[in-house]
Amino acid sequence: QGTRDHPPAHVVLRDRLLAAVVTCFKRHGAAAIDTPVMELRETLTGKYGEEAKLIYELQDQGGELLALRYDLTVPFARYLAMNKITNMKRYHVAKVYRRDNPATTRGRYREFYQCDFDIAGQFDPMIPDAECVKIVHEILSDLQLGDFLIKVNDRRILNGVFAVCGVPESKFIPTCSTVDKLEKMPWEEVRSEMVGEKGLSPEAADRIGEYVQLHGGLDLIERLLQDPKLSQNKLAKEGLGDMKLLFEYLTLFGITGKISFDLSLARGLDYYTGVIFEAVLLQQENEHVEEPVSVGSVAGGGRYDGLVGMFDPKGRKVPCVGVSIGIERIFSILEQRLKAGSLRFHMYRLSPQAAGEKVRTTETQVLVATPHKHLLAARLKLISELWDAGIKAEMLYKKDPKLLKQLQYCEDTGIPLAAIVGEQELMDGVVKLRDVARREEVRM
Amino acid sequence: QGTRDHPPAHVVLRDRLLAAVVTCFKRHGAAAIDTPVMELRETLTGKYGEEAKLIYELQDQGGELLALRYDLTVPFARYLAMNKITNMKRYHVAKVYRRDNPATTRGRYREFYQCDFDIAGQFDPMIPDAECVKIVHEILSDLQLGDFLIKVNDRRILNGVFAVCGVPESKFIPTCSTVDKLEKMPWEEVRSEMVGEKGLSPEAADRIGEYVQLHGGLDLIERLLQDPKLSQNKLAKEGLGDMKLLFEYLTLFGITGKISFDLSLARGLDYYTGVIFEAVLLQQENEHVEEPVSVGSVAGGGRYDGLVGMFDPKGRKVPCVGVSIGIERIFSILEQRLKAGSLRFHMYRLSPQAAGEKVRTTETQVLVATPHKHLLAARLKLISELWDAGIKAEMLYKKDPKLLKQLQYCEDTGIPLAAIVGEQELMDGVVKLRDVARREEVRM
Repeated sequence: QGTRDHPPAHVVLRDRLLAAVVTCFKRHGAAAIDTPVMELRETLTGKYGEEAKLIYELQDQGGELLALRYDLTVPFARYLAMNKITNMKRYHVAKVYRRDNPATTRGRYREFYQCDFDIAGQFDPMIPDAECVKIVHEILSDLQLGDFLIKVNDRRILNGVFAVCGVPESKFIPTCSTVDKLEKMPWEEVRSEMVGEKGLSPEAADRIGEYVQLHGGLDLIERLLQDPKLSQNKLAKEGLGDMKLLFEYLTLFGITGKISFDLSLARGLDYYTGVIFEAVLLQQENEHVEEPVSVGSVAGGGRYDGLVGMFDPKGRKVPCVGVSIGIERIFSILEQRLKAGSLRFHMYRLSPQAAGEKVRTTETQVLVATPHKHLLAARLKLISELWDAGIKAEMLYKKDPKLLKQLQYCEDTGIPLAAIVGEQELMDGVVKLRDVARREEVRM
Repeated sequence: QGTRDHPPAHVVLRDRLLAAVVTCFKRHGAAAIDTPVMELRETLTGKYGEEAKLIYELQDQGGELLALRYDLTVPFARYLAMNKITNMKRYHVAKVYRRDNPATTRGRYREFYQCDFDIAGQFDPMIPDAECVKIVHEILSDLQLGDFLIKVNDRRILNGVFAVCGVPESKFIPTCSTVDKLEKMPWEEVRSEMVGEKGLSPEAADRIGEYVQLHGGLDLIERLLQDPKLSQNKLAKEGLGDMKLLFEYLTLFGITGKISFDLSLARGLDYYTGVIFEAVLLQQENEHVEEPVSVGSVAGGGRYDGLVGMFDPKGRKVPCVGVSIGIERIFSILEQRLKAGSLRFHMYRLSPQAAGEKVRTTETQVLVATPHKHLLAARLKLISELWDAGIKAEMLYKKDPKLLKQLQYCEDTGIPLAAIVGEQELMDGVVKLRDVARREEVRM
């Protein structure tokens, strides 16, 4: 349930998506690491807040208690702490596991790829953070998925808001989880969850509501920096100061057109400590799809300065910021748009075949064929020479296949050439090379 | 336990190994599939014989009972049956999981990559089987790991041997498992396990011993075809006939020099039904290593004509033959040889750096640097232009780094160029491009 097999046509398209993402990560100087799919259960404990119930645990069969990784961030932090690394720019492309309610049409699976890029180390403020946002911008532009928006916020600003609205510190994290639902439900429902389930006073909830419905750009940052209450809060002030710096850097990158400082952005996970961001695709005006494509965010991330210290025996902190690209959701969007017949053009760059023609799932250059019986040995000798010369070659696994069947196989699978050896060619020491589509032959 | 993190230098080398293997699989016209890391427990039940106890099970957290895949063959068979595919040539590169006693110096881990190539479908005998053996030969030759031997045998020949030696059919599979240990222990110990644990008569064991210690080529096949007892056994006769055909095809491929028909080869898994094969690296004469490198087989496979039928409600069979490349073991050999200082030359092709120099784990082409303070904005603007132009570029995440530190970073990480912008360059609208190794600069 919630998992799927990927047939060849899927794998071809997915590998192209992954390659596009990895190309961007490498462009930013990241090195790859790999970690096991299973972690000690205790490594994952206390990192995911309300989502912890979605962790897959392995059976106790003797030995260590294990669980499947839930994301690539916690394993990265564990890796840094175990190896005492204080400075690293890494990417990691691998599958993660969540016992979530699958919603496969929206690209939500229980096993899915994550593509993570993270920068660990003590640096000057917001320079690595701005690079992470730039990376999201580059990838979503490269993939030509249509218009998108990158929402940014800061956990310190949110906590500052909660504080000045009269929320006790013990309720910051649960309130944060509730704010995170603003993307999916109207403010009224979020408000009643705050009051009903999370036990906030109606006044506090209303005051929060005034803030978290704000979004804008540098102007909003300036306005909040002047806000009589927020400007008195140390956390909020720090967060707003850094947000201003972030916008400055993103202006130099020339990408503020797609950035929105959005106070409703909260992100579900416990471990964020500073800037957070999330990219969403925007419905396109010229898209005439019956069901609107709704896949949630396609990328997200943020700063988590405390996570590595949780794995270090002496609690030594390594500040980190990172981004995760939701390749599976992007894949689902492409699939749905393909089905809806839209976006031919955009797909074309990623997969000319998928945009119209049949997807070729193999790369075979030539089929070794024979026109009469009793020529298996000739085929085996020729194909062996081709393989040894590095040429991608196939033959039918029959002793005496009909020529028509062999040429049909080329057409079915898109093999462009057939190398034909008959008695005459054998005697003359040549092969007939046939261009399958043009039906032209040369002897060589 | 038994798993490991892979730091960047590992991943770089491993990805090159994997790429070499995948290149070969594609050369043979295979398409890629991907399946989930977890399977239903019942899918794995009854497929692995004595090894079943090594399967990782997931905790029952409600819903389906799951286990981690043990190999890629059973998921492939399940995939074929579920999708009613009767004809497919596929490869699959993915990690598999075994609760084995780890022996990490010999490359035996609990999580490890398998690289599988399989041909499913009803074809003329031994043509796909010969291709699988050819693939092993190509990969081990390409990787230049030194001399190797590919042992081949056939389950039908082994079963014929057991039958004519007086073993009851119910004991074929346990006897097979015992014969499989001949590679690791002397005949005397194998014999006593047959008699003591498996309950064979001493006479039967002795008769088996006469057969399973034989190995050779076409001559041995011919001799056994004349063997008064074996030639009367239908299974053995079929197996020997096909073995002769296999040698005929491998002769056309020109690779019989590295093939040994070895009656001691049995392979552990239950599902094989015909030809089986296994590749071992041979200790090289000129290798002066203190501990001999012993890593077991580096590739293996065989024919399994009954496995797909086990997943089909109507039991419809799809004959299959396939090969699995033990990339993790090959990686361990390379690591050990590197440590032992041998095999510089062979490594060179795979990894010039690993053969002597430091491994570069990133591909960054240029570092954007500034020579004085207050030039962060200039760096951010320039690096953004480079990224947008597809150039792999980095900068230090400091507002005012020293030029020397920046050039040192290039030397440490192998970045060949530094693009330097100072006040003068900004005014002139140029950058100074510095060749880090040669210490030469041009303005452009």
